[in-house]
Amino acid sequence: MLTFEIEKKSTDSRARTGSIITAHGEIPTPIFMPVGTLGSVKAVSVEELKQCEARIILGNTYHLYLRPGCEVMTHMGGLHKFMNWDRPILTDSGGFQFFSLAKLAKFSREGVNFQSHIDGSRHLFTPEKAVDIQMVLGSDIMMSLDWCIPYPANEKETMAALEKTTLWARRGRDHWLEKGGVNNLFGIVQGGMYAHLRALSAQQLIELDFPGYAVGGLSVGEPTDLMYEMADHTVPLLPHDKPRYVMGVGTPENLVEMVGMGVDMFDCVMPSRNARNGQLFTGRGTINISNARFRMDENPIDDACNCYVCQNYSRAYLRHLYKTRELLSYRLNTIHNLHYYLNLMERIRQSIKADQFSAFKKEFFSQLNHKELNR
Amino acid sequence: MLTFEIEKKSTDSRARTGSIITAHGEIPTPIFMPVGTLGSVKAVSVEELKQCEARIILGNTYHLYLRPGCEVMTHMGGLHKFMNWDRPILTDSGGFQFFSLAKLAKFSREGVNFQSHIDGSRHLFTPEKAVDIQMVLGSDIMMSLDWCIPYPANEKETMAALEKTTLWARRGRDHWLEKGGVNNLFGIVQGGMYAHLRALSAQQLIELDFPGYAVGGLSVGEPTDLMYEMADHTVPLLPHDKPRYVMGVGTPENLVEMVGMGVDMFDCVMPSRNARNGQLFTGRGTINISNARFRMDENPIDDACNCYVCQNYSRAYLRHLYKTRELLSYRLNTIHNLHYYLNLMERIRQSIKADQFSAFKKEFFSQLNHKELNR
Ligand SMILES: [Zn+2]
Ligand SMILES: [Zn+2]
Repeated sequence: MLTFEIEKKSTDSRARTGSIITAHGEIPTPIFMPVGTLGSVKAVSVEELKQCEARIILGNTYHLYLRPGCEVMTHMGGLHKFMNWDRPILTDSGGFQFFSLAKLAKFSREGVNFQSHIDGSRHLFTPEKAVDIQMVLGSDIMMSLDWCIPYPANEKETMAALEKTTLWARRGRDHWLEKGGVNNLFGIVQGGMYAHLRALSAQQLIELDFPGYAVGGLSVGEPTDLMYEMADHTVPLLPHDKPRYVMGVGTPENLVEMVGMGVDMFDCVMPSRNARNGQLFTGRGTINISNARFRMDENPIDDACNCYVCQNYSRAYLRHLYKTRELLSYRLNTIHNLHYYLNLMERIRQSIKADQFSAFKKEFFSQLNHKELNR
Repeated sequence: MLTFEIEKKSTDSRARTGSIITAHGEIPTPIFMPVGTLGSVKAVSVEELKQCEARIILGNTYHLYLRPGCEVMTHMGGLHKFMNWDRPILTDSGGFQFFSLAKLAKFSREGVNFQSHIDGSRHLFTPEKAVDIQMVLGSDIMMSLDWCIPYPANEKETMAALEKTTLWARRGRDHWLEKGGVNNLFGIVQGGMYAHLRALSAQQLIELDFPGYAVGGLSVGEPTDLMYEMADHTVPLLPHDKPRYVMGVGTPENLVEMVGMGVDMFDCVMPSRNARNGQLFTGRGTINISNARFRMDENPIDDACNCYVCQNYSRAYLRHLYKTRELLSYRLNTIHNLHYYLNLMERIRQSIKADQFSAFKKEFFSQLNHKELNR
């Protein structure tokens, strides 16, 4: 089981910094987890992840269950060994993929009967099976199977999904404890955009006493203000002495805002997906590297960045690689973006330690200037 | 101008080992040059090239002329600086690309009028312009513009192309000398599959006194035996005290055979292109990493290989990455294949130094066993 230690709490926000200790090492919080869907964080090596100071990565249970599958994963000794990553791994439960990716997913109290998006084969996922698969993967932090709903959803649908999520959380937890309670299993709060349902979901999950809690069902298409409202309402309801994780979020601005709400963990495909689309993050906003004004620009992506890419390559070269679709483009762009995200989290942690988080936040937002950069 | 020093000649073959010294450092010969078409050796970084012991890489004049173009290249200070590669670079002249890639290329005594394969724009390449562009790129070794022909071609076509190649070689050389004779310009022997035309082409080019000589127009679809026959006939006609380069060749077997004919330099897209298609080289032949028998194979690609990939990853993981089209797959496969090629050349050089090349060659071919591996 993990240990979660809070080192410092901000005095003028709910931000806190500390560390989660797992069998694969320590994770400083608040933390951002790069997404390694299929046993590789797209376009980068494990050495590059370490150079970017990645302390934990995320794997996708749904994807790894389909390919390479549990037989291979069992034989190869789990995901850490398979992909040569010796730091912690968190795996999601598949819930979000059934909702977003699988074809013809049929939800029942028993579980999810779904068709593979790759070959159309049919499979049944239950809360117990989601735990079993994640145990085969050897995740340091496993997630309960949850029932995701689209935005918008009415109260009745939301309530029904919440009930199933709690039922599945209990079944998954019981199964995990029967199997010895190794590693860690987190519960996922649902409740859509209804504050009282968020509170109900949180209450029901807290009774199940998970080692940590996630807030799911955010960043599913709702307006940003509504997302913030729900997070701000839900996060304080979760145990203060356990890690709190908002799933699938978000932009750098989202991270800064939500750290102030007391969130400890984040994951998002944004830094890597945007990198592959030529969108690069800087302290002054995002730039699109394909822009013609970078054609002969000798400067690095961001003067203030000390990543491998900014130390060695010009915007002109990166633009050329991107325009010619060279594979190196995706790698270099991803390294920079991951470095930006992970370095942002490091700066956030330092600011909390110094009890300067609110000043940091103010400075962060004042420096963002999308318009100037994107024109 | 380059210095070429022969350190050791094999006593029972025409193989020789030595070094070419350029402004960007020393190149041990015989050497294999990875191909970096567009300012990046596809899928790998310059650091990885150095880890694979790449001593010189090749850039494509035709491609770099179209993208990013000479204005950018001039502004950015040449290809070395642009791509962050501080070792030697050889650039081809574009001749082969006009023949294979450009649309509606019209050849005349003046030069080649062609249409870009990217946007259809029309351009004129002359022997002088080919030199000018390569000087902008800052190549350590530039190639003369040559007139390539398909296989098969009749004697008359072959003779006509040869004449134009000699004319262009003279014009390019004169222009290069007028511009100060910086760096180096090699001549390219043509003559198709006609031994007497190969001899004539070699003789005409030798009169122009280039710092080095290439044999072009091989590996264009002819049977392997015919390619060997032409190389074996042509290479000894070239000056023994200058580097001899066979362009666009080839398989590991081709390299071993042609070193025995006295060839010093090779380039080929094969190690990187095959890597991206899942074909991996080993001392016992090539394997296709997508093969189902590697599904749960914990072994490295090649037990005998000490590359980064073989030290860290299993065939099962590499198969998974390849099957799921993860970008990391192309990188890891390319690193291994380039390491295989470059290590093969190192072993060849060592064998020549010890005057054991013929024994090395015999052992090399005895260990190749495609059938066993490919079944
Ligand atoms: Zn950077
Ligand atoms: Zn290897």
